Order: sequence, then C-alpha cells, then structure tokens
Amino acid sequence: MNKQLLFVKRPQGAADASTWSLVTNPIPEIKEGEILVKQHYISLDPAMRGWMNEGKSYIEPMAIGSVMRAGSVGEVVAVKNNPKFKVGDYVSGFGGVQQYAVSDGNDLYMVDPKLAPLPTYIGTLGMPGMTAYFGILEVGKIKEGDVVVVSGAAGAVGSIVGQIAKLKGCRVIGIAGGPDKCKYIVEELGFDGAIDYKNEDVRSRLKEECPKGLDVYFDNVGGYILDCALGMLRMHARVVICGAISQYNNRTAIKGPSNYLSLLVNRATMQGMVVFDWANRYGEAAMAMGTWLAEGKLKSREAIYEGIENFPQTYNRLFTGEKLGKLVLKVIEDE
Amino acid sequence: MNKQLLFVKRPQGAADASTWSLVTNPIPEIKEGEILVKQHYISLDPAMRGWMNEGKSYIEPMAIGSVMRAGSVGEVVAVKNNPKFKVGDYVSGFGGVQQYAVSDGNDLYMVDPKLAPLPTYIGTLGMPGMTAYFGILEVGKIKEGDVVVVSGAAGAVGSIVGQIAKLKGCRVIGIAGGPDKCKYIVEELGFDGAIDYKNEDVRSRLKEECPKGLDVYFDNVGGYILDCALGMLRMHARVVICGAISQYNNRTAIKGPSNYLSLLVNRATMQGMVVFDWANRYGEAAMAMGTWLAEGKLKSREAIYEGIENFPQTYNRLFTGEKLGKLVLKVIEDE
Repeated sequence: MNKQLLFVKRPQGAADASTWSLVTNPIPEIKEGEILVKQHYISLDPAMRGWMNEGKSYIEPMAIGSVMRAGSVGEVVAVKNNPKFKVGDYVSGFGGVQQYAVSDGNDLYMVDPKLAPLPTYIGTLGMPGMTAYFGILEVGKIKEGDVVVVSGAAGAVGSIVGQIAKLKGCRVIGIAGGPDKCKYIVEELGFDGAIDYKNEDVRSRLKEECPKGLDVYFDNVGGYILDCALGMLRMHARVVICGAISQYNNRTAIKGPSNYLSLLVNRATMQGMVVFDWANRYGEAAMAMGTWLAEGKLKSREAIYEGIENFPQTYNRLFTGEKLGKLVLKVIEDE
Repeated sequence: MNKQLLFVKRPQGAADASTWSLVTNPIPEIKEGEILVKQHYISLDPAMRGWMNEGKSYIEPMAIGSVMRAGSVGEVVAVKNNPKFKVGDYVSGFGGVQQYAVSDGNDLYMVDPKLAPLPTYIGTLGMPGMTAYFGILEVGKIKEGDVVVVSGAAGAVGSIVGQIAKLKGCRVIGIAGGPDKCKYIVEELGFDGAIDYKNEDVRSRLKEECPKGLDVYFDNVGGYILDCALGMLRMHARVVICGAISQYNNRTAIKGPSNYLSLLVNRATMQGMVVFDWANRYGEAAMAMGTWLAEGKLKSREAIYEGIENFPQTYNRLFTGEKLGKLVLKVIEDE
C-alpha cells in the first residue's frame, strides 16, 4: 500500500494538522514510459509554507487535494519502457510526501548511494546545497577577505553558505537560535563567530562581530534580523534574499525592511534568488561540493525523523527551530 | 553684503523656519588661490532633508551653524592667483544658500550660459540630470521594449529618467501628484501613461498601465508607492533606489517595503545609488543630454522662485509638491 499525505486546507498563518490528511491507497500502476519510485526520504523545507499559498509565486501553488509537494530520494522499483532508468537505480526529485511516487523520469536526477548517504542528496547535494552554492557565489559574489553574515546559519542552506564562504577566504559570522547551534557552527563548521538571536541582541552583537560592517548578508529569515543586517552594510555590499522564514506564517502583511535606505547610502544591492534558475549548472555544484565533502572540507548534517504520519510535527520543527541541520523525514518502513 | 542662510537647528520630522537663520555678513575677502562666486541660482533638492540628520550617510551631516548646503550656479567676480578661473566665468558647485561663495576651485565646474540657461546647470545638466542619466542607464540597465515606471515623475530627476527611457525605446509610466503634473509628463514629455497618486489608486492603476508588469522601477518616493511597484515586478526586474521623499520627514522608523519578497519570486534586484560615484563620467552625460536638449529631444523645466529670504517656504514645496519641474531659488538681487 502507498501512504500519502494530501494537502487539504490552505492555512491562514501557520500550517497545522488540519492542513493535511493521511490516506492509504494501493501502490499505483505505472503506464508506458513511467517509473515507480519507492521513496526513502522526504525533504522538509521552509519553502513548503509558501507553496501552500494561493497566488503568483516562483512556482505553481499546490492544489487542494494534491499530494503534499516535497523533494525526495528513493529507489526505482518498477520501469515500463523507459531506457533512462532501471530497477535498483536511486533517484531524487519532487516525489511528494508519499511512500511511492510515479514519474515520467523528466524531473528525476540519478544519485549514487555509494558516494554519499541518501539523505545528503536532498540536503547538501540537493536543493538546499545548490541554493547555498549559487546564492553565495553567484548572487553574493563573495571574494577573499569579505565579511559574510548568514542567518539560519545552522540550517540546511545557511550551514553550507557559511562553509563555502570560509573555503573562499571570507570572515563568516552566523546567526542561529540557541547555544547548541551557535556552538555547532563555530566548533564543528569553523565559522568565525556566532550570534544567538534567541538569547542575544542581534544589533549590538553584529557591531561587535563586524566592527567595520559586512560585505555580504545572506538572508534566510527576514524581519528584524534583516533590518539589523541592513544597518551594517559596507559600500557596495550585496544582500542575498533567499528566504524569510520569520515572516512565512504571518497572518498580516509581512514586515518590510525599514533600513532599506542603507542600500542607497552604501550603493548596495539586494537581490532575490530561486535555485531553479541554475538547474543547468547543478552538475558543476554537485561536483564541487561532492569533492569538498569527500575531502572533509564541507560538513553535512541531517536531522532525520521517521514515519510519514509524523510529517506535521516534523514540519513544525522548521519554524520552532527544534532540529539541527537539514530536516529529513524517513518514509520507508522496515519490512 | 552677503546674505547667508545658516543651518541652526536639526529638525525632528519636517524642517521649518526655525531650522535656519538668515544673516548678513560682509562679502568675504578671498585668499591666495581662491575664487569669489556671485551666486545666481540655488538648487533645492529632497536630499537636503537627509543632510540635516546626524549620523552616517553618503555625505557628512551638516554642522550646526554652517551655511545651508546647496548646489548652485553663479559668476566668478574675483580671483586671486588661480589659473583655472577668471572673472566673468560661470561656474557650478556646492556654493550653499548664500549670495557669495568662496572656493578653491576644486569643487567647481565651468558652465556656459550661451549653451543653456544657468538654472539648467543645476537641473538637467547638474546633479539631478546626472542622477537620472546614470540611474536609469547604469543601475536600471534599461533596454528597448522594457516597461519602466518612475515615481516623482514630474520632478527634476524623474522627468529626465522618463524621457531618457523613452529615447531608449521603453514604455514609460510616470507617477506624479495631481492632474497638472500628469498632463505635463504625458503631453509635454511624451510619457506613455501617468498615474496621479493624489487622486487615483496606484495599485490598480499600475495594473491597468502595466498589465504584464514592469521591468524597471525608478524610485524617488519610497513608502506605499514603492510597495505597489514591488508587487508588479517581472522576472529579473531592476528597482533603482534613488530617494524616498515620502519618508524623509518621518519622526519614527521609516516604512520598509513589505512586498520586498517579490525580489525573490521574480529574481529581481533592488539597488541603491548615489550620483557622486559617476563623477568621472559627468562629462559624458552632460554631452549626451546637452545634445538631446539642443535637438529638442529632451525637455528641461525649472520652477524658479526668488529671494534668499524665501528659502524656507520654497524648500517646503519639495514636500508638498507645489512646483512643476526642478525647484530653483534665485538669490542674486537686481541692482
């Protein structure tokens, strides 16, 4: 049987258990050219909250009644006349929150579980890693000696952003929630400094950590922290807008950055990014990051929870911050 | 005698008559290497409000007791051993709000009253024109066919921005206050459309005028209009942050653009600019715009008021909008 999580109600504010409905259906039959994937791991990402909204965005809003959209990685268990895949291949794509996914193969990437653990392919070698790689290099345009600040610094994207910036010779300060995460990014990942936004004053701590200001701010959170960072820009600074998790569950208009005129004063640039724009270069990024992983220069950490029925409370950890590293749900059941 | 307007009190909120004090002093003696300029016209610009604030900005804050900072144009009436200038030359610079200004010549540009009227040298051929030229071409990166929206569209910068965009083959919509200004930018300046923010709903009118969205938004005003424009971005749109006149007199934190996540959705860029960065290319811009002016392809209009003692109420017109075109004060008195 195939357990599937359906998206049944658009949330106002935060999503909760009523947003989804768990159903059990027969494992689907595949048609000519199709592939059946037995999914092992589901990726949980802050972007999911945006997909639930109606209206124009960078991707179609999810339809009510559809399987909850999610990145995933799994094993090919059936193929009907598709020369690109065979049973036993491992693939990653947007399989959704379900145990079995059908695909025509066009949206699947082959992955190799001998090179990296499967969850890494939906983390550092998947969308979050690609986002970090192209965001900090292509949009942030970091160069040696830059002072780089990243929020959500212990998360799937932020932890890779900071490590890449370190590899490129930058001074890197991470903003994260709680002493454990702050300790992790400094002691395990090699950041130069950490600011605990749950227990410290971000504005004054930024002044301490970046006395001359910052060259690149990579924003995953929006809100007050974005404003603090804008107040610290150096001339020609770059602000990468990757996400705004502090604002996603708002029921009212989101908080705009009241310090945005710092862009004028400092001739700075604030640029939004969506990783899909670099799809034709994912291979390049995977090669670079795979090499760094193999050499031990890049560390990848996943917080893996189990059971498709635990999706709602696991999803909630994205917003409470109760997880360390890339949030993953194991949906395959031991047989 | 030399009438001078001193900056005597930092305003909270809007500047008023108590911000300045008019004094009369002897015409200054010049020292070796210096030039005495009899000033004809003073430039009034929204940026003046920012110069009055304490704290870090793109230029030193004005000191209490100093002559009110202002761009100006006038005639050289005395020179003491400075080979670059002679009596009878006309020059433009930052002479301040006074009838006679002393300079070492390093901050003065020579101007030719036979090529253009003197007020044009502090308008279209001065800082506002330079701001428009480099802002729309270098920061806005306009190309033929772009949909360009500019706020403050009947003003010194906005009117030139829109005309340059038209010359480059763009569709241009201006946002201005009142039917006279809207009529002016369409009928006199050739804009494709105008939105009267004082009498029309900017959000719905933008949708009418730009049904497919906009490629470049040139912002002089900030606040609600900036938010409306952000809601209209097309993919890879550019937002030029030149000013935020709606926010300059705020006593509380300025309103940040709550639609800024449109930058993410549309992979768009918001970039601040200060014209001084292009100082080494002013000649190029003056040549281009002077040629357009001579050919009748670019129209320049000044709203000229008279009398240094009328500075406070004239300055106020920047914020009430009661003027059409570049705001100028004639400070030379008929003898």
